[in-house]
Amino acid sequence: MRKILIIGIGAGNPDYLTVQAINALNQVDVFFIPDKGVEKTALQLLRKDVCERFIADPKYRMVRIPMPTRAAAGADYRGSVDKWHAELVEAFSGFITEELGEEQCGGFLVWGDPTLYDSTLRIIEHIRKNGLALEYEVIPGISSVQALAARHRVALNGIGQPVLVTTGRKLAEGFPNNLDSVVVMLDGDQAFKRIEAEDIDIYWGAYVGTKDEILVAGKLSEVMGDIERIRSQARMEKGWIMDTYLLRKGDGK
Amino acid sequence: MRKILIIGIGAGNPDYLTVQAINALNQVDVFFIPDKGVEKTALQLLRKDVCERFIADPKYRMVRIPMPTRAAAGADYRGSVDKWHAELVEAFSGFITEELGEEQCGGFLVWGDPTLYDSTLRIIEHIRKNGLALEYEVIPGISSVQALAARHRVALNGIGQPVLVTTGRKLAEGFPNNLDSVVVMLDGDQAFKRIEAEDIDIYWGAYVGTKDEILVAGKLSEVMGDIERIRSQARMEKGWIMDTYLLRKGDGK
Repeated sequence: MRKILIIGIGAGNPDYLTVQAINALNQVDVFFIPDKGVEKTALQLLRKDVCERFIADPKYRMVRIPMPTRAAAGADYRGSVDKWHAELVEAFSGFITEELGEEQCGGFLVWGDPTLYDSTLRIIEHIRKNGLALEYEVIPGISSVQALAARHRVALNGIGQPVLVTTGRKLAEGFPNNLDSVVVMLDGDQAFKRIEAEDIDIYWGAYVGTKDEILVAGKLSEVMGDIERIRSQARMEKGWIMDTYLLRKGDGK
Repeated sequence: MRKILIIGIGAGNPDYLTVQAINALNQVDVFFIPDKGVEKTALQLLRKDVCERFIADPKYRMVRIPMPTRAAAGADYRGSVDKWHAELVEAFSGFITEELGEEQCGGFLVWGDPTLYDSTLRIIEHIRKNGLALEYEVIPGISSVQALAARHRVALNGIGQPVLVTTGRKLAEGFPNNLDSVVVMLDGDQAFKRIEAEDIDIYWGAYVGTKDEILVAGKLSEVMGDIERIRSQARMEKGWIMDTYLLRKGDGK
């Protein structure tokens, strides 16, 4: 039976790879490489580093999967995601059937951790439910959330308190009023600008774990403008940006 | 200057160690081993595995730090934690000063990830603020949250939705009404029994990542009793348990 390994390769630093992920890399006959938009450059660099450094016998093949364009998310965010998702299922399914032998092992290299804001897992499960016989396994990886917290040397949670991991889109609805710690991913619009900044600290990072890493921490009201400026400049210079941040209310640190 | 490495060694499986963590292990002259209660057995096993397997030149020393007893958390949960914390600062500080040479590197091996429900990071920062000159670094590790999700092959978040990571104590206050995904750690009282189970799936795991791993998934209302029975039996047989679970409302999967 075909086997698929969904391998978390961590967020930026090749040293974030786990022993389990390295062992998984070395089992793969065919890597499937979805050509993603935003994360493209970062992913390409990390993927190249990781394969060159950690695969002992480079007998693997790389197969690129051209990605269907995702319609801009309007009011119907979930609908647009579902449609895109269905197209991905079809594309991935076709490539797996055509490119992977029945006894072979295919691999997907996922930025960060495959269980956090990544669709590969759902797509593979969907393909299997559609009737394609395959086994699959998920290999966890260091997420950008963890990389951010480690580099800032800050705990994600206040003592005994929960932490919410959310998106920029959701944060734009307001800082959840019963929480003190919120991590924001996938925020293209700097939603932190629109929340009540009083008594909130921000721990922000871009390109975390890479040589281009930028970290800013401080009172949100004081560093908000700096982050906006630094982010916009970095994005312009490099042509892309990946950033994440932790917001901490009160002195829950 | 003294250097301290706070090293996340992942949740259970030695293969969860990252390359960065392995490199860190190999820099350490003195490992400080807080003798913790609940996690003791699991931590001891993993620590032994990890050091034997990944440290090339075993010239390191192990120094045990006897842990002050933590008062049972009554109404003043935060107060009892603060008091315990202050005692830890004193204990750790004493051992670091006495056992670590001024140019040496000390290491703390943290189960899972040092930024999630672990106090080492706060204690070291506190010691530094108290005036002891030291550098420190935090090495992320695969948390039990990620291990759980990977082993169940389930995404932590619903599509475009947030995920809350919380404690059993907090969950007992009720399932947050604006969320669909909640991960619960540190739940000694099976708080899942006390929430409105309708329309909720649970992905539960104990000893995740180890050879004793137990996984149960299903509708909370249907498997609640099984989990309670399995948990209690496993705990009795082994003398300790570490479990985590994801609750998912609706069909947000």
